[in-house]
Amino acid sequence: MPYVNIKITKEGVTKEQKDELIRRATQMLVDVLNKNPETTVVVIDEVDTDNWGIGGIAVTERRKMKK
Amino acid sequence: MPYVNIKITKEGVTKEQKDELIRRATQMLVDVLNKNPETTVVVIDEVDTDNWGIGGIAVTERRKMKK
Amino acid sequence: MPYVNIKITKEGVTKEQKDELIRRATQMLVDVLNKNPETTVVVIDEVDTDNWGIGGIAVTERRKMKK
Amino acid sequence: MPYVNIKITKEGVTKEQKDELIRRATQMLVDVLNKNPETTVVVIDEVDTDNWGIGGIAVTERRKMKK
Amino acid sequence: MPYVNIKITKEGVTKEQKDELIRRATQMLVDVLNKNPETTVVVIDEVDTDNWGIGGIAVTERRKMKK
Amino acid sequence: MPYVNIKITKEGVTKEQKDELIRRATQMLVDVLNKNPETTVVVIDEVDTDNWGIGGIAVTERRKMKK
Repeated sequence: MPYVNIKITKEGVTKEQKDELIRRATQMLVDVLNKNPETTVVVIDEVDTDNWGIGGIAVTERRKMKK
Repeated sequence: MPYVNIKITKEGVTKEQKDELIRRATQMLVDVLNKNPETTVVVIDEVDTDNWGIGGIAVTERRKMKK
Repeated sequence: MPYVNIKITKEGVTKEQKDELIRRATQMLVDVLNKNPETTVVVIDEVDTDNWGIGGIAVTERRKMKK
Repeated sequence: MPYVNIKITKEGVTKEQKDELIRRATQMLVDVLNKNPETTVVVIDEVDTDNWGIGGIAVTERRKMKK
Repeated sequence: MPYVNIKITKEGVTKEQKDELIRRATQMLVDVLNKNPETTVVVIDEVDTDNWGIGGIAVTERRKMKK
Repeated sequence: MPYVNIKITKEGVTKEQKDELIRRATQMLVDVLNKNPETTVVVIDEVDTDNWGIGGIAVTERRKMKK
């Protein structure tokens, strides 16, 4: 019955990576809290880098700075 | 003033269905808790089936299995 | 598989009212989108009136003004 | 470490406006609670007007009524 | 920078179990998406069983039925 | 109509600080996006330091380390 929401920036996450996040987040709830995987829900939100800020500036700008 | 968030998979939900969800969720708060509909907010999030997992696998795969 | 989150102010909502919200929100997803009720999750968040603002002021103050 | 989520309707919000929301929300946490801006996260969700309801009807319809 | 929110029912989850959820959810983002653990945030919400519904009824009632 | 959710650790935030967060978050939406303050909702979630992790460990432990 648990609900896990994973918010990440939208930067080319592959289907395989999403599948792995879903698999591991579900297994985590089974291992740590003995939850039923059949009713464990995982939702991944991919957020545009313009819409995600840290340190007061958008990730879009942070990525440029690093280069 | 209540806030209702409905998360569903993005699988061809029509404008009419969304209108009905908004109408019913708002009426529910009026009927059950006597809330003011004018400040009742309903937000519907449609999530890609690759990004929604249950039972440890993505809904995309679950839909294929059923066929 | 849908997930419904209902956020309301913590102002003496009874167990019966919560049960009714859970029942109606679930039935709404069954009726409108033909979802499976067995995997439909409803989570009610009750928020302290000091922690909920509208119109730029806390609900705690709004309640006092009305009197 | 704080996390701020801003949900607004998707109606032509510019990059400059998003940058300003990120800057001001972060500064707010610094000023009011003395939080570290470097670990303050701001996420902006833009929601389609069909998917946002208030007063029991979608914003899409409300915008039409106003005209 | 990722943000993970884990919602579970409030049923005696221990400090050790919470620590393990935080550790594993963070490691998952490092392993799968090569994210920086130092800015990865995990928030655990424990929800009263009266406020969590599945299959149209509160978990409080489901727990009683099982006995 | 915007909805702002501010998640912070539960560490003695005062009523005055909460009022200031509500006031400033609302004013931000008015100034930057010309939103109507009367339908702008701000919800503050205070999270126990055991339930908030960053860098893979709970804030409870991080606070101890700093001393």
